[in-house]
Amino acid sequence: MRSIIIASTSTVFGGAPLDYLYEKLKTHFKDTNAILFIPYARPGGISHDDYTQKIQKSFKAIGKTVQGIHEFENPTEAIQQAKGIYVGGGNTFVLVNMLYKHNCMNAIKEAINNGTPYLGTSAGSNICGLSMSTTNDMPIVYPSSFKTLGFVPFNINPHYLDPVSGSKHMGETRETRIKEFHKFNTQPVIGLREGSFIEVKGNDIVLKGSLRARIFEYEKEAYEVVTNTSLNLIK
Amino acid sequence: MRSIIIASTSTVFGGAPLDYLYEKLKTHFKDTNAILFIPYARPGGISHDDYTQKIQKSFKAIGKTVQGIHEFENPTEAIQQAKGIYVGGGNTFVLVNMLYKHNCMNAIKEAINNGTPYLGTSAGSNICGLSMSTTNDMPIVYPSSFKTLGFVPFNINPHYLDPVSGSKHMGETRETRIKEFHKFNTQPVIGLREGSFIEVKGNDIVLKGSLRARIFEYEKEAYEVVTNTSLNLIK
Repeated sequence: MRSIIIASTSTVFGGAPLDYLYEKLKTHFKDTNAILFIPYARPGGISHDDYTQKIQKSFKAIGKTVQGIHEFENPTEAIQQAKGIYVGGGNTFVLVNMLYKHNCMNAIKEAINNGTPYLGTSAGSNICGLSMSTTNDMPIVYPSSFKTLGFVPFNINPHYLDPVSGSKHMGETRETRIKEFHKFNTQPVIGLREGSFIEVKGNDIVLKGSLRARIFEYEKEAYEVVTNTSLNLIK
Repeated sequence: MRSIIIASTSTVFGGAPLDYLYEKLKTHFKDTNAILFIPYARPGGISHDDYTQKIQKSFKAIGKTVQGIHEFENPTEAIQQAKGIYVGGGNTFVLVNMLYKHNCMNAIKEAINNGTPYLGTSAGSNICGLSMSTTNDMPIVYPSSFKTLGFVPFNINPHYLDPVSGSKHMGETRETRIKEFHKFNTQPVIGLREGSFIEVKGNDIVLKGSLRARIFEYEKEAYEVVTNTSLNLIK
């Protein structure tokens, strides 16, 4: 049975990486003590080694060991053999570029559809949607495609940010950007605020965390849903 | 002689589109009363017709007529015959996608290098750099390349925004994003604040407007330059 956590962010303001998810992760990864970490998104350009070391510290708190995918000779084999996978945040373009380069996209899809538990945060959540086209990241590299894993039948906008009232900045708000997305694409977009996550169990897709999420459906007014709402019927 | 204006934004807070540039544009386009407008970036997904009508109003104030490139059967011919070109803002991915689709990229390069005056704002400015990789826009379509016009030997970040002090949002600041860019690319980036523009006359590249700009060079600390600074030596 598919078991997926799609989190807006790894870190909430004032907290340590992943600490707000610890209780959840204990259950999520209960059948394994070893997590395969995919550090490809490299936040701030950090190296794969340094990023993996950071994540090792976070998981140590719940008694799990972490190995980076870059330590394996064959990344697809590492994915096939993993008992739990975590794809961390950073730059989505860099992440998707590397996943395609190393033929990981299909390997992850297969593993997760066969029941390997998956955790994604930020960029690692964005790729759970149909495409990466609602990322907030800068296109610092050119990936071979914007198509992503499609674990949920919509797109994810992580770190969803409400318009800043009184702002004098003339750049687009997040909501404007997502509306522009819908001039060229029809799939729904879930704006996931920091602290929210989506839990997928088999075919059930449910909003979790303490905050509401903002739903953008094609040619409809955006609306809010509260925690524990099923997202299965969004279209 | 090349004559190019690369503006951070079309509209400054509280103003009407282009009004802060009127005096400059009178000189810039002094040899023509007819401007070719390229509305491909479609801000907010607005139609080419509607966008062109808006821009017609702005240019009417300085006695210029405006025709949209979409009204011509052959876009590259329209570019070759134009006496002045304006590429407006919107979504850079949508803009670049259309420019490649309609074979406009090389046509614009040639026309501008042969002396046709060019005005770009926002997305229309971003494409004056070496690549579109420092855009702020959402990747809502997949263009065939991120390479752009290269009128200046660096990248542009329009609508440059200083970090918001005291923000509790965990998404990346603009400066962090540009630093990430430099983990994968070596060209300099000019962060152009709203109200600033770059003027290119032949081979001279100068910062204009009342604000400072922020310069990001590869493996150097970011620094500020004031108006009227030459940007020729940035590397």
